[in-house]
Amino acid sequence: METLGSLRRTNYCGEVTLAMAGQEMTVCGSIARARDKGGIIFADLRDTTGILQLVFDEDTPKDVFAKAESLKSEYVVICRGKLRERAAKTDKIATGDVELYVSELRILSEAQTTPFELRDEINVNDDLRLRYRYLDLRRPSMHEPIVLRSKIMQIIRNYFCENHFTEIETPTLIKSTPEGARDYLVPSRVQPGHFYALPQSPQLYKQILMLSGFDRYFQLAHCYRDEDLRADRQPEFTQVDEEMSFVSEDDIMTLNEGLIKRLWKEMLNVDVETPFYRMPWDEAMGRFGSDKPDTRFGLEIQDVTEVFKGTEFKPFAAVLEAGGTIRAINAKGLADKLSRKNIDKLGEVAKTYGAKGLAYSRLTADGTSSSFEKFLTDAEKAALYAALNAETGDVLLLVSDTDWVKACTALGQVRLDIARKHGLIDPDKFNFLWVVDFPLFEYSEQEGRWMAMHHPFTLPKAEDLDKVESDPGACHAVAYDIVLNGVEMGGGSMRINDPALQDRMFHALGFTEEKARESFGFLMDAYKFGAPPHGGMAYGLDRMVMLMLKKDSIRDVIAFPKVQNAGEPMSGAPDVVDEQQLKDLSIALTLKD
Amino acid sequence: METLGSLRRTNYCGEVTLAMAGQEMTVCGSIARARDKGGIIFADLRDTTGILQLVFDEDTPKDVFAKAESLKSEYVVICRGKLRERAAKTDKIATGDVELYVSELRILSEAQTTPFELRDEINVNDDLRLRYRYLDLRRPSMHEPIVLRSKIMQIIRNYFCENHFTEIETPTLIKSTPEGARDYLVPSRVQPGHFYALPQSPQLYKQILMLSGFDRYFQLAHCYRDEDLRADRQPEFTQVDEEMSFVSEDDIMTLNEGLIKRLWKEMLNVDVETPFYRMPWDEAMGRFGSDKPDTRFGLEIQDVTEVFKGTEFKPFAAVLEAGGTIRAINAKGLADKLSRKNIDKLGEVAKTYGAKGLAYSRLTADGTSSSFEKFLTDAEKAALYAALNAETGDVLLLVSDTDWVKACTALGQVRLDIARKHGLIDPDKFNFLWVVDFPLFEYSEQEGRWMAMHHPFTLPKAEDLDKVESDPGACHAVAYDIVLNGVEMGGGSMRINDPALQDRMFHALGFTEEKARESFGFLMDAYKFGAPPHGGMAYGLDRMVMLMLKKDSIRDVIAFPKVQNAGEPMSGAPDVVDEQQLKDLSIALTLKD
Repeated sequence: METLGSLRRTNYCGEVTLAMAGQEMTVCGSIARARDKGGIIFADLRDTTGILQLVFDEDTPKDVFAKAESLKSEYVVICRGKLRERAAKTDKIATGDVELYVSELRILSEAQTTPFELRDEINVNDDLRLRYRYLDLRRPSMHEPIVLRSKIMQIIRNYFCENHFTEIETPTLIKSTPEGARDYLVPSRVQPGHFYALPQSPQLYKQILMLSGFDRYFQLAHCYRDEDLRADRQPEFTQVDEEMSFVSEDDIMTLNEGLIKRLWKEMLNVDVETPFYRMPWDEAMGRFGSDKPDTRFGLEIQDVTEVFKGTEFKPFAAVLEAGGTIRAINAKGLADKLSRKNIDKLGEVAKTYGAKGLAYSRLTADGTSSSFEKFLTDAEKAALYAALNAETGDVLLLVSDTDWVKACTALGQVRLDIARKHGLIDPDKFNFLWVVDFPLFEYSEQEGRWMAMHHPFTLPKAEDLDKVESDPGACHAVAYDIVLNGVEMGGGSMRINDPALQDRMFHALGFTEEKARESFGFLMDAYKFGAPPHGGMAYGLDRMVMLMLKKDSIRDVIAFPKVQNAGEPMSGAPDVVDEQQLKDLSIALTLKD
Repeated sequence: METLGSLRRTNYCGEVTLAMAGQEMTVCGSIARARDKGGIIFADLRDTTGILQLVFDEDTPKDVFAKAESLKSEYVVICRGKLRERAAKTDKIATGDVELYVSELRILSEAQTTPFELRDEINVNDDLRLRYRYLDLRRPSMHEPIVLRSKIMQIIRNYFCENHFTEIETPTLIKSTPEGARDYLVPSRVQPGHFYALPQSPQLYKQILMLSGFDRYFQLAHCYRDEDLRADRQPEFTQVDEEMSFVSEDDIMTLNEGLIKRLWKEMLNVDVETPFYRMPWDEAMGRFGSDKPDTRFGLEIQDVTEVFKGTEFKPFAAVLEAGGTIRAINAKGLADKLSRKNIDKLGEVAKTYGAKGLAYSRLTADGTSSSFEKFLTDAEKAALYAALNAETGDVLLLVSDTDWVKACTALGQVRLDIARKHGLIDPDKFNFLWVVDFPLFEYSEQEGRWMAMHHPFTLPKAEDLDKVESDPGACHAVAYDIVLNGVEMGGGSMRINDPALQDRMFHALGFTEEKARESFGFLMDAYKFGAPPHGGMAYGLDRMVMLMLKKDSIRDVIAFPKVQNAGEPMSGAPDVVDEQQLKDLSIALTLKD
């Protein structure tokens, strides 16, 4: 192994251009591959920016050529030479029109053969890749998203700072609070029997910061949820967290549209049009069966309840008698693609999301096959066709339910399933929108009480203030989610800044005075000493980066992600610990044999 | 309570200037105080930037004046009016030459009387201030450091980004490793009996990132140490963490000097001279008795061993026979200030730091009082005086020890004690230096083995490579600390990138092959696939901000600090948790009754 000596990088591999041909330069990195072609040695040198071809031939100093002959993949080198235009240019790498003719070479580290090849086009199992994450991260397709994520973070921070925000770090060893996912706990050694929780979000602290007069706060906060893992969830994740005083919800949405516009422009050179459409939750559920509608395609849900008023078709009649609803999608022109078998599968999707069934009519040139038309009068049929603008080639899909939200949700999933399987989605589109006016409460059958849909500090809409106790189900919140291509990228709300109203909310949520005090006592007190109107929002950064870079999993935008069992294969975390460590914490294991 | 209506802030209170007089503006914030002076109401409006005086008089619209009459401290308001030059100007606030003549006022929140007055000049006990942290943080002297900290963080991030660094978030649920302080543990629910640790630093991950080809990494990382609290320690703290490939230690120090220069210039408008002096550890210990010397004053330690060669004075003779050393400070001109009683106290300081005693000579105009001169020959005395340039008015302080480091450490503490108590330190100075060439190992009596002074991955100096096994105590490390005014602000090292050398290090540290593999196996493997030369450093951000803003405690630069019992008085963390939460984690408490 050699040392750097006096050599230092003058250029990054990926930033070298044809205009620099003729220049002397020093580059360093790892050998991606080396090959001898008729006495000329070509080596691809890889650094964090890209790849540059090195060349050694009969004019290369003998000792340098000898060293070059020993080069193998992943050897680490620094070398000096003259850049020249390449005879045989290639488009495969960004620097494909140049090569470095090396005059000085130092091998800084040799390398064993890696357990898998480090190129982009590989088919290696995930376990091996995660165990050798440091090797996988050398592959350009894995490497680049981590570098871009850093750029994204800087743009976000700069945007907030330019807009008078203060970055404040909130504590991460905090008190466990109810209402939320499961906390990660940290036993206290100094206070035996007591535990910290790792924060699920800095929610309480950011409200406290507004009460501390900080006016505008942001943070890229590490947050934690002890929940079972899915493709887009990690035990620890990063939240872009913000809170503002003396603003309305419109101000917050406008400011955040500016952030999105800036990010998409600077990262992707995409011009995002603002303002985004602000779609009330009722509309989102009604038209798309989702509180995060994907608007890159049609297939909208329609209300055909009126068509069936007085129908003799038993299942629909029963639902309508109970005050229910009938909703439909016209899968326009998809009759050829949606076979009976496909439609049966869509029926399963609808049932998974709570529908009792999926009625259908498939209007092919050869005639109609339908699960329900034979039970309809001609007038009903005509009215249905008219309502849905049905023509030959279409497939009509209907769900009836006493609960309109359930009917729409089931159809919304059917809608997504069709679009995904039949290529209705343009992958190049970035469709942003706000969903606003969420329900304030949702009823939990399990708990037998109304729960806060966002959290207990969410401000009710002004016109619903008198219904908080009398008709909680009818109350809407000053809450907003930002949705991109059918994925919730972030959300927030205005907070209650009136202690009397906060008391009413806790009461409506079934909190006793005692329980409220125990959980949020210090916050309830804090609001009594003067509280500005304030609100905020939070984004899942991992998800935002994933969507922006069009990656399939958030694992691809996190340097060292956890896997299904919440472990990290490379380091072997979590692991057993010494008995003494547990003793110090006054805890013991209660494992069953 | 009123709402914002259509009013929105147009100006921040603290940013209003005389040049804006005559302008209409809207400001908002909290009432710092309100007073009626002969029918004119004056109110100080406070926001995150400062204070602006509001005025209401007989020309104010009647309804606005009536509202103003109800204003009390900490009421939250938004108001519109015309800025005008103030008749009676004041220097007490930055906007003391203007006032806002209010034409529209909305009271957004009323406030109870606060448990203590929210002005800078208060004398309230810490417990109360910490319990009502959100009120304490409204006081300008508490508020401002948090805002400045945000600015400091942005400057740091911008500097690193400009210098080709990538910000990468490393995991915070990691594996517990030996060699360090006590870890905070997090029980895993999914893997019962297994624990995550919260990171003491991202050390292993940043090295892994270099092996992943990221070249230059930085992060403002949350780190954790379960140690007993001191004024400058918190259980959770923020570390400015960095690592670079293809560089030498000089490159790292130069880059970091640039960071410091930028920070001090932009935050304090202070020009810091670079490069900083690079002081070998041996010199730092010899001259200042500290590996973090405060060079804002003299009182340097001198080696007077030669003077006492062959002395009859028993205590010194015994030490010298055992190969020991005699070191001295001349407290120049301090004889009047250092009474016998003072000197006795200094003796206690010396003993606390391991000295067997502190010999002294106090040379006053009235004669000399000394603990040892009567045992010396005239020649020895003359030689001592000459060596120390001793004159009437001086106090000579001597420590003898078989261990020169111990002798110097004790005198170093005596030096600091004198300087602090007798005003020898210029509080306006910022004295930076590097301490370099630290010992590679230090011997632990407790463990009965050599321990890594920094950590086991620290690169030995090239000239000491052959002494790692044979003479560990003589080996120096390529390690460097940055010291400001006698406080270690940060430190780092070059890392071993040769697997064979790393094996030798583990061996020298008494790790069995098994133990090394168990603790660092994945890292040891990682170095086998090609490792660039790399090194890095880390700063304690809290401490850096504290030093920059000249605060006494890191608590003053952290929004929600923990106190002595590692708790947070405002929220009451840590707290007891539900039995079910522990069951889910397969742990139980083992508290004694």
